[in-house]
Amino acid sequence: MKELEERIRRDGTVKTGDVLKVDAFLNHQCDVRLFDHMGQEWARHFAGKTITKILTIEASGIGIACCAARHFGDVPVVFAKKAQSINLDGDQYTTTVYSFTKRKEFPVIVSKKYLDADDHVLLIDDFLANGKALHGLIELCHAAGASVEGIGIAVEKGFQGGGDKLRAQGYDVDSLSIVESMNPETGEITFRD
Amino acid sequence: MKELEERIRRDGTVKTGDVLKVDAFLNHQCDVRLFDHMGQEWARHFAGKTITKILTIEASGIGIACCAARHFGDVPVVFAKKAQSINLDGDQYTTTVYSFTKRKEFPVIVSKKYLDADDHVLLIDDFLANGKALHGLIELCHAAGASVEGIGIAVEKGFQGGGDKLRAQGYDVDSLSIVESMNPETGEITFRD
Repeated sequence: MKELEERIRRDGTVKTGDVLKVDAFLNHQCDVRLFDHMGQEWARHFAGKTITKILTIEASGIGIACCAARHFGDVPVVFAKKAQSINLDGDQYTTTVYSFTKRKEFPVIVSKKYLDADDHVLLIDDFLANGKALHGLIELCHAAGASVEGIGIAVEKGFQGGGDKLRAQGYDVDSLSIVESMNPETGEITFRD
Repeated sequence: MKELEERIRRDGTVKTGDVLKVDAFLNHQCDVRLFDHMGQEWARHFAGKTITKILTIEASGIGIACCAARHFGDVPVVFAKKAQSINLDGDQYTTTVYSFTKRKEFPVIVSKKYLDADDHVLLIDDFLANGKALHGLIELCHAAGASVEGIGIAVEKGFQGGGDKLRAQGYDVDSLSIVESMNPETGEITFRD
């Protein structure tokens, strides 16, 4: 998506350690007009599919998912919560996700009331790097018996391989920008064609 | 706002300890059509004011704020982040907020890049009870020299007093529903007229 790539080039910052900061428009300050256009793109890509629900993970995915939902007939958006601890009272689907940024595992939960076997789910998130967070969301869908119809991502770090692994497993991953390489010294970013 | 009150009556659950669960449509599963209508209501209420930015706090405020932003000319939405620890490198405004739900204080930050003295800010959040989170957001605005033009709330727990304290301080608080009392035994909820 040209608009997003240009925005990343203009307002993104490449840091050492494979970090791409896009907090000017994506995950601290949010450009809702851009989010709307992203939703339009995903709606075009997933047009042939039945989507009954959008599932994302707090916090950065929520705004993007809520803006995108308009383009899928205002389907409900459910955000998986990062929990302090896993509550074993049985009314939640739970998994754990390892965060490389925070260097620790954290529990992720979705209430059983809001995800079930009738759901056709579109997963949405801001970033896809190694794919750990998405694998967690997929696990929650499997636990609920829900089908994963597709995955919409704003920024995929192609060089970290998570997206291609998901594609090899048969998932329809629509990343609106795929960074193939980036250079913290020059700030240069190369996108996949 | 009739639609929201009816929805709270229908899908909300009153729990002991002054807890009102609205995770079916507000803060776990999100009804984006309702969020859109809420944005319309706030836009009507704050119509005479210049709003250049919406400020909220992760995680539950983000979806509501992003849907509301359309009705304010697609102004940027900034969400304050709950940090693990306060980073004193000087590029962030920081404060601490005490959470009664989690029974602890946590640091809240906004990057100095995304809030400044030129900003006319609308604060948006899902709940207003004692007002601790909002006071944190107001403090961040004051630190930035930004003016707080108004406060848009989905559910105010009127009996906890935070909203009326803010009104007494001169803030224009537009709560779309104000719960005056609720009964965990009967499930009955009374709204302020």
